[in-house]
Amino acid sequence: MTDRQTSDHVAFSLLAKSGKARRGVITTPRGEIRTPAFMPVGTAATVKAMMPESVRATGADILLGNTYHLMLRPTAERIDRLGGLHRFMNWDRPILTDSGGFQVMSLAGLRRLTEKGVTFKSHIDGSKHELTPERSMEIQRLLGSDIVMCFDECPALPATDAEVAKSMRMSMRWAQRSKDAFGDRPGHALFGIMQGGVTPDLREESAKALREIGFDGYAIGGLAVGEGQEAMFGVLDYAADMLPEDKPRYLMGVGKPDDIVGAVKRGVDMMDCVLPSRSGRTGQVFTRRGVVNIKNARHAGDPRPLDEACTCPACANYSRAYLHHVFRAQEMISGMLLTWHNLHYFQEIMQGMRDAIEVDAFEAWEAEFHAGRAMGDIDPL
Amino acid sequence: MTDRQTSDHVAFSLLAKSGKARRGVITTPRGEIRTPAFMPVGTAATVKAMMPESVRATGADILLGNTYHLMLRPTAERIDRLGGLHRFMNWDRPILTDSGGFQVMSLAGLRRLTEKGVTFKSHIDGSKHELTPERSMEIQRLLGSDIVMCFDECPALPATDAEVAKSMRMSMRWAQRSKDAFGDRPGHALFGIMQGGVTPDLREESAKALREIGFDGYAIGGLAVGEGQEAMFGVLDYAADMLPEDKPRYLMGVGKPDDIVGAVKRGVDMMDCVLPSRSGRTGQVFTRRGVVNIKNARHAGDPRPLDEACTCPACANYSRAYLHHVFRAQEMISGMLLTWHNLHYFQEIMQGMRDAIEVDAFEAWEAEFHAGRAMGDIDPL
Repeated sequence: MTDRQTSDHVAFSLLAKSGKARRGVITTPRGEIRTPAFMPVGTAATVKAMMPESVRATGADILLGNTYHLMLRPTAERIDRLGGLHRFMNWDRPILTDSGGFQVMSLAGLRRLTEKGVTFKSHIDGSKHELTPERSMEIQRLLGSDIVMCFDECPALPATDAEVAKSMRMSMRWAQRSKDAFGDRPGHALFGIMQGGVTPDLREESAKALREIGFDGYAIGGLAVGEGQEAMFGVLDYAADMLPEDKPRYLMGVGKPDDIVGAVKRGVDMMDCVLPSRSGRTGQVFTRRGVVNIKNARHAGDPRPLDEACTCPACANYSRAYLHHVFRAQEMISGMLLTWHNLHYFQEIMQGMRDAIEVDAFEAWEAEFHAGRAMGDIDPL
Repeated sequence: MTDRQTSDHVAFSLLAKSGKARRGVITTPRGEIRTPAFMPVGTAATVKAMMPESVRATGADILLGNTYHLMLRPTAERIDRLGGLHRFMNWDRPILTDSGGFQVMSLAGLRRLTEKGVTFKSHIDGSKHELTPERSMEIQRLLGSDIVMCFDECPALPATDAEVAKSMRMSMRWAQRSKDAFGDRPGHALFGIMQGGVTPDLREESAKALREIGFDGYAIGGLAVGEGQEAMFGVLDYAADMLPEDKPRYLMGVGKPDDIVGAVKRGVDMMDCVLPSRSGRTGQVFTRRGVVNIKNARHAGDPRPLDEACTCPACANYSRAYLHHVFRAQEMISGMLLTWHNLHYFQEIMQGMRDAIEVDAFEAWEAEFHAGRAMGDIDPL
């Protein structure tokens, strides 16, 4: 009933390159994902402060859902009985789910890690749960995820090479168990996750292990965990090249606008981050000219939009003064409008990069991107 | 640029009656207001949890804005400099503003009431302010309100007849001062407010005073302040008849669905209430079959919509299970969807009454309304 291009299986086509930056498309039974793609995060079956049709209006082709949150509440079994996550949250386009591994480590209490998997206590009600590669595959199947992530362990940094190596090798054994448990599911994809910290040899060992198992796509894990942009780009400079050219590459949990641009420049195809939605709720706005803090008193009487060139509802229909007012008055429309703007801006970056790569003009686009940010916000009136 | 019917002045046409229930239309330069009309409340320049285009989509022809809140933050002068309240909040249809009197009494600290007016301290920052009939008219003019309310005093109940009479007579003197200060403003309307508590003689005295001054519409004040539905209907049974037939009648701060229906039955044309929006944020839902508390565990696994006959986004796109989940997870989409549903339902009641009055079938419509509520919510699965 829609005009979207679909396919009965998940496949990636690389359409163009500009330097290392890649323009592609992932076709799925639920529609196309244009890459480079930014995936808004819908943790608890909602992208916070947004209606799903508004998320789509910003240009998102795919959402990310969090296995950890959904398994605890309302549970994967309940979502399955209700017809799956797409129907539950009224989003009929592709959904990628993470494996739960990362968030068990960052959110749950009383974790115990063994070769088998992780046991932990829910941060919501203290109830006891277990996640293993097999259980993570089951949960993601129950949710109806289109792109399923292998269950892995992401070690906390800083860590010694020996610790990183030990963790990575277990994640590679878990990757094989994930693949075995995932089985053959036409129309659904399974992505492996490369680990190995900031050590090239370990990254290469991890990439080789994943390539031998064989996946529909490859994530670069273990980054965006506090190592800093320079270290992250340092890894991306070589890590992306270790992954198959003909499969999508996904950098998990990234990031700020300049992180995203730098990652695409280094050959990354997909990213996700809570930043645009979380920042929208705290009054932090991303624009072509950098970051604007709407709570700042300088906006209180300013009749101008956040960004006069932006076509999102926040910019098209409201003044900075209004956005400042509703933020200060703690009105819900503040989070609604600023989240919309931020997601719109992030998708605009992605569209800009996709267009630039198609005509092999990524470098010029990137220079303009940085020049805009260097200008800083418009002067106060 | 729109297809709405407008007029260069504010005028009321009575189109049909069914018993005492009235079907009419108020034409204004900013569009028509179909009566009986329910006005959603946009206290701080936003109907909480709603985009203004969504409020319009529920069927609202007019919003209410609160003078008290807006004079304190962001101030009427600032809104005026920014082009008025309509532009500020992105709502270009009619706005009615209250006078501030009622909310000074219910929200502000350290009030001092004299014949001149009221001085009080802001509940936001403790700053000192004064409201008089003249200042209230000035604020409502700065806001750009289409329908301006006289500044009145609403005495707390219970009160003796002498107290009610004294307060009402001052409000009538303030009504004259409001009229004098309002002056001649084509395209804008000034409504008087009847007081007099639950005492017919005082109501008649108040109505007579207002009629002698002459207003574009007449509000029935001093009700919906805790006196109960029976007492309120008791007053409406005679008070509405004391007001001119050819002007709109506005019952302030009402109410629950059955309050609204009972008021229209008694000849009321306009109402406002925070109930649908406030309840939406606390999980209380109004449907044709009565009240549903979405936080109740019985909904946790229920795949059915709130109301299968409702066309609002919450009912068209989501299960009770989803609405329960996002309420429990304290997600903003919970307040967004439930507020939308409640406002949609309230407007559906209004449309139902308007249609019924046109064909002189109000009584049959009312019987069906009560029969639906008597059924109670659908049985649990």
